[in-house]
Amino acid sequence: MTLLALDFGGTKLAAAMVNAGSREWLGYERALSLRDANANTDLEIMRSLIHSLQKGEKPSAIGVSFGGPVDATTGKVRLSHHVPGWENIPLRDLLAEEFGVPACVDNDANVAALGEHRFGAGQGYDSLFYITVSTGVGGGWILNGQPWRGAEGMAGEIGHMVVDPSGPVCLCGKRGCVERLASGPYMAQDVREVLENEPQRRGERGERRGEVLRDLVGGDLKLITGKVVSEAAAAGDDLAVEFLSRAGWALGVGIGNVANLINPQRFVLGGGVTKAGEGFWGVVRKVARETALPEVNFEIVSAALGDDAPLWGAVALAEDV
Amino acid sequence: MTLLALDFGGTKLAAAMVNAGSREWLGYERALSLRDANANTDLEIMRSLIHSLQKGEKPSAIGVSFGGPVDATTGKVRLSHHVPGWENIPLRDLLAEEFGVPACVDNDANVAALGEHRFGAGQGYDSLFYITVSTGVGGGWILNGQPWRGAEGMAGEIGHMVVDPSGPVCLCGKRGCVERLASGPYMAQDVREVLENEPQRRGERGERRGEVLRDLVGGDLKLITGKVVSEAAAAGDDLAVEFLSRAGWALGVGIGNVANLINPQRFVLGGGVTKAGEGFWGVVRKVARETALPEVNFEIVSAALGDDAPLWGAVALAEDV
Repeated sequence: MTLLALDFGGTKLAAAMVNAGSREWLGYERALSLRDANANTDLEIMRSLIHSLQKGEKPSAIGVSFGGPVDATTGKVRLSHHVPGWENIPLRDLLAEEFGVPACVDNDANVAALGEHRFGAGQGYDSLFYITVSTGVGGGWILNGQPWRGAEGMAGEIGHMVVDPSGPVCLCGKRGCVERLASGPYMAQDVREVLENEPQRRGERGERRGEVLRDLVGGDLKLITGKVVSEAAAAGDDLAVEFLSRAGWALGVGIGNVANLINPQRFVLGGGVTKAGEGFWGVVRKVARETALPEVNFEIVSAALGDDAPLWGAVALAEDV
Repeated sequence: MTLLALDFGGTKLAAAMVNAGSREWLGYERALSLRDANANTDLEIMRSLIHSLQKGEKPSAIGVSFGGPVDATTGKVRLSHHVPGWENIPLRDLLAEEFGVPACVDNDANVAALGEHRFGAGQGYDSLFYITVSTGVGGGWILNGQPWRGAEGMAGEIGHMVVDPSGPVCLCGKRGCVERLASGPYMAQDVREVLENEPQRRGERGERRGEVLRDLVGGDLKLITGKVVSEAAAAGDDLAVEFLSRAGWALGVGIGNVANLINPQRFVLGGGVTKAGEGFWGVVRKVARETALPEVNFEIVSAALGDDAPLWGAVALAEDV
């Protein structure tokens, strides 16, 4: 029995085939979305990825991770925050009809949570919260060994939990939510603003703040990304360390609050920002521990499947169809 | 089939009997804890309440609400924050042995959530969060129509979610948690401090701040309680309105954050502070709506069973034993 796993990310698309029960891909194809992508171009690229994979073989079922809100009961996409034209697309039925096999669609955070639970850092745990800290911050639940999606599929939105009501304003309109403080692009933006506004400021030892950051982008501040901030922090850049610590603080407060509320066994963290090294993880763990009540126990661990968590979760969806 | 419902509160004890399926008590007894209560005196008083109720009739099962952390799987009390001596008391087994019938014990917020779900404002809802705002602030979950207690029975602790990291310090050691800002005793304490420190301050129209508050306690500020603050706010006292609004704000932020995280259908609010009138409820609803993402829907309603929610929840526990 062959299963087809699809991942519609905000900027990239991936498809993979696997034999049910196997942990090795039969084939794996990926591509970037077009610069002026819409739902149709995404679907066309995905069709070509599937075509390259299939070689005439028909899968028994399709599992799909979608980067945006989905009604998992109907498999209908609500919208994508990155790509226009996805509003109300019945992705599950569309794929089921086109390929003549059952399909199942859910949003990427829920699917990644399922992937980590079935195949990764959440194996054997009845309750866990998966958090991705990347372009955005989102989460997915496993409770009683099953995905918990909420009354209308909206559960898991730790990204817009307010942790500092006097913090900077987020696109969502609120101040100081976790995503505003911990996501890669916002971190990059804040660091860039400091460098632009205080170009001549020097630290205690006479060096300029953010010197490593400036060097990493050859002085072109527009090139600073979340990843650059992480790299600069790893190299000891004071400014980068400061903003990564703030990100870790925000995430730690969020995790501690969630631990008090739901008391899951494990938190599994994935996404680019979590690759920022032990300094970042230390802050996250310390602040989460301080924020949770002393009687509330939990572990915070790194995602085991990395960027493939949504694809492996899609395999789990296809297994259960 | 007769069921016995027991409520071990922090300061009061209650016991009631009911025929299974009935919504009317056969009998209902209550008493205050002793001033220097311990677990034994609480148990003695409860025995006498049960004795008054029973009149020789033996119940088929016992359900128990306990005001403190409980391991619901073993029915063992972890501790009481109000009454010493409850550490590790195996309350379920103790009652089951003494009365020769099955018993079930859980903490008051979980039990009240179950009571509201089975008999009150949560009937017909698959997912809800019950919040009591009283001497403390606590919560209990119903998810998939069943209590969700967390990996170690600690779920529901919305009271110690931090909503204002620069707010006043709570007994738990953190700043600006929901309980620190919204519980009755803390509200009373904060109002009292303002009145003590600015006794001569006058408002825009020449009146002193908190005039109604002062009148309600005949000038003896020690007598100010959460209830007095609510009454003063209802009578238009500016200072009382200010602190009740802050309480409503804290609760609203907490509820909005929880809505984003778990997406339950309903929030059911009980406890003395929620009797503070429409001004308070207006702030709670407005801030919760602003804090939740626009796509996240929920209702905030008043508990239907009032102070009897734990007892009715205990009936539900006894029904399910």
